[in-house]
Amino acid sequence: MTDNIIVSREIHLKQRPKGFPTEENFEIVQVDIPEPKEGEFLVRNIWMSLDPHMRIYMAKGTGIMPAYQLNKPPSGGCVGQVIESRNDKFKAGEYVLGNSGWREYWVSKGNGDSNGQDIVKVDPKMAPIQYFLGILGITGFTAYVGLLKIGQLREDVDTVFVSTAAGGVGSIACQIAKIKGCYVVGSTGSKDKVEWLLNQAKVDYAFNYKKLGAGSEDNNNNSISSELKDAFPNGIDLYFDNVGGRHLEAAIVNMNTFGRIVLCGATSQYSSISVADDNDKFPQYQGPSNLHLAISNRLRLQGFLYSDHYDILDEFQTSMSKWIKEDRIKWKETLYEGLENAPKAFIGLFKGENFGRTLVKIGSDNAS
Amino acid sequence: MTDNIIVSREIHLKQRPKGFPTEENFEIVQVDIPEPKEGEFLVRNIWMSLDPHMRIYMAKGTGIMPAYQLNKPPSGGCVGQVIESRNDKFKAGEYVLGNSGWREYWVSKGNGDSNGQDIVKVDPKMAPIQYFLGILGITGFTAYVGLLKIGQLREDVDTVFVSTAAGGVGSIACQIAKIKGCYVVGSTGSKDKVEWLLNQAKVDYAFNYKKLGAGSEDNNNNSISSELKDAFPNGIDLYFDNVGGRHLEAAIVNMNTFGRIVLCGATSQYSSISVADDNDKFPQYQGPSNLHLAISNRLRLQGFLYSDHYDILDEFQTSMSKWIKEDRIKWKETLYEGLENAPKAFIGLFKGENFGRTLVKIGSDNAS
Repeated sequence: MTDNIIVSREIHLKQRPKGFPTEENFEIVQVDIPEPKEGEFLVRNIWMSLDPHMRIYMAKGTGIMPAYQLNKPPSGGCVGQVIESRNDKFKAGEYVLGNSGWREYWVSKGNGDSNGQDIVKVDPKMAPIQYFLGILGITGFTAYVGLLKIGQLREDVDTVFVSTAAGGVGSIACQIAKIKGCYVVGSTGSKDKVEWLLNQAKVDYAFNYKKLGAGSEDNNNNSISSELKDAFPNGIDLYFDNVGGRHLEAAIVNMNTFGRIVLCGATSQYSSISVADDNDKFPQYQGPSNLHLAISNRLRLQGFLYSDHYDILDEFQTSMSKWIKEDRIKWKETLYEGLENAPKAFIGLFKGENFGRTLVKIGSDNAS
Repeated sequence: MTDNIIVSREIHLKQRPKGFPTEENFEIVQVDIPEPKEGEFLVRNIWMSLDPHMRIYMAKGTGIMPAYQLNKPPSGGCVGQVIESRNDKFKAGEYVLGNSGWREYWVSKGNGDSNGQDIVKVDPKMAPIQYFLGILGITGFTAYVGLLKIGQLREDVDTVFVSTAAGGVGSIACQIAKIKGCYVVGSTGSKDKVEWLLNQAKVDYAFNYKKLGAGSEDNNNNSISSELKDAFPNGIDLYFDNVGGRHLEAAIVNMNTFGRIVLCGATSQYSSISVADDNDKFPQYQGPSNLHLAISNRLRLQGFLYSDHYDILDEFQTSMSKWIKEDRIKWKETLYEGLENAPKAFIGLFKGENFGRTLVKIGSDNAS
C-alpha cells in the first residue's frame, strides 16, 4: 500500500498518576512506524476504547501486575484496518480487533501483537466496527464469558446479582441474564443509573448503593447486605462481581448453597494496587471477612479474563448480533473525536462524566 | 433383637463454651430409645470421632450456620452396628457410618438420619471399622474429594501446598498428592509435626509457620508468603486450605495462573463465628486483602463438604484401602475409652494433646 515511512501519532504515559489521572500524565508524540517484516502486518486504528481498569496499569506495578511503561503508549482495545500485510492470514483491507489503542498505526505479528495479546478479525457486515470494542467486543464478551462459561448460568432458574450494573460489562451481564429468563438485581451508584437499569435494561430491581440506610459510602456493607436480603428472598445463585470489597462481602452472606461468584473485578481492585505507590484517593481493598461461608455454602469464586475464552467468541458474536437486531439489548456509548482527546476521555471515566462505553474515534473508516 | 426398652447414655451440650470448651459444658444423661418404626432401624454405636470444627456448632449460631441444640447430643461422626431393623436396605448385623456420635444408641430412618444426614454402610472386611471415621471415612474422603474432585489435581504436574498439613485431613491430602506424583509442601505448627511430615508423610518440604522470620504468630503473613516463595520457585498450582486467613492471603500471592484453591476450612473460620456470641480467644477472621489477584491470575476458590460427593465414595474406599495395604499412607490416631470421656477427648483437641485423628470407643465390636 505504501513505500513511504509512516508517521504515527501516539499518546504516551509521561508520568504515573497520583490519585485521579490528569492531562499532565500524558503527552502526544510522533513516531516512525517500521515496515512490516515477513509474517507481520500494518494496522491503521479507527477506534479505541477506554476502561477504568487501565488506571491499575498506570501505577508502578507490584511485581505481580504488569505496569504500563513510561514514555510508551499504554495498551488498550482498538479496532483498525490492515493496510499492508506480509501475513497470509490477515489481508490488506480486513478489519481487526487488537490491544494496541492510544496510537494511530501499529505493526502486528498476527496471533501475538506487540503486547503479546491475541488479535482477531472483525466482520464489518455484522455490525458497525466500533461495536466490537463494546457490545460485540471485549465488554460484551466479558459479560457473556463471565455469566455463561464461568458462572454457568442456569437458564430460567438462577437469581442473579450484578454490581456496577450500569457499567459497560455490568449492563450487558444484566441483560443477558434477563434474556436467559433469570431474576436480575443490579447495584449502581446514581439515581439516573438506577432508572436506566429499570427502564432500559429492564432488570427486576436496582438500587443505589450510595444511598442505602444510614451507612456512609465507606461503611455500608451491612446496608448492602440488608438490601440484598430484601431483593433476594430466596437467596442469590450467581453474583457477577465487578467491585469486590464490601459488595462481595454483602453478596457472600446472601448466596445460596452451590452459588457461583464470578470475579470480573473492577473498582476495588484498582485501589489496593494504586495505593501501593501513590497517595491514591481510592479506599483500601477489603478482603471478604466472611469467606469461610464459602465452605459451608459450597460457593465457587472464580476469576477470569475474556482473553482465555476465544473458543466461544464466534458463538458470542452470533448470539449478541442476533439480540442486537431483535432490540433485546440496550447500551450506551460516550464518544470522543480525535486521538488527542484520549486523555480527556480517560479522565472522564473518573469524573463520572461518561455513561456506558467510552470510545475515541482515531481515524476515518475508509481503506487508505 | 430386643423387645425391651433400650436405655442409652448420651453426652448433652449443657452450656455453650466461652472460649475453649471445658468439662462443665457437657453432661452425661440417660434416655429411652424408641422402637424403630416401619423403615427405621436401631444402631448401637461402637466408635465416635471428634473434630475441632464441632466448636463452631457449639456457639449460638449466626442465622447462617446451624448450632447444636442445648440439652441434646451434638451430631458427629460415628460407626455402629444395626441391631434391629424395619428397613429392607439395612439389616441387623450390618455396620453403618453415621453422623450421630456422642450417644450409645440411635434410630435411623435410612437415607436421612435424625440429623438429616446421609448414612452409609461400611464393610468390616475392608478394614477395622474405626478406619471409616478417619483414613477411610470422612477425614480421608474429605482430603480425596478436595484434592481430586474440587481441586482437579493434575497427576505428576501440580505443585501442591497444604496448610494444617499434619492434621487429619491435611496429612492425608499431602500423601494422596505425593502418591499422585506431585511436589508437596506442608505448613504446620510445631517442630514435631514438621518432622512427622518430612519423615512419615514424606512431603517434599514442611515448615513451622509459628517460627517464621521476625513476625509474631499474629502477624506473619509476609513470612508465610516469603516461605512459600522459596518453597515454590515455580509457583503453587493447588492450595488445599485448611486455615483461611493469613495462610490464604500468603498462598494467593504465590499462586500460578489458573491455580485452584480448595477451601476445606478449619481454624480461621471457627473464630469469626464463635466471636459472634462469646469472648472467644481465637483471633478475628481476616479476609484475603489480595483476592483481586484471583482475576488477573484466573484463580478458582471453591468451598466444599464431603457429604455432597458420595458418588465417588466407593472409588475413594477402593483406592484408599489399596494404598493402606501397600503401606503408602501413614496416619495417627489418639484413642479415648468410654462415652463418658468424649468431652475430655474433645477438649484435648484444643490443648494440642491429640495428634492425628481423635476417636472415642463407645461400645464393643460384637453383635448384641
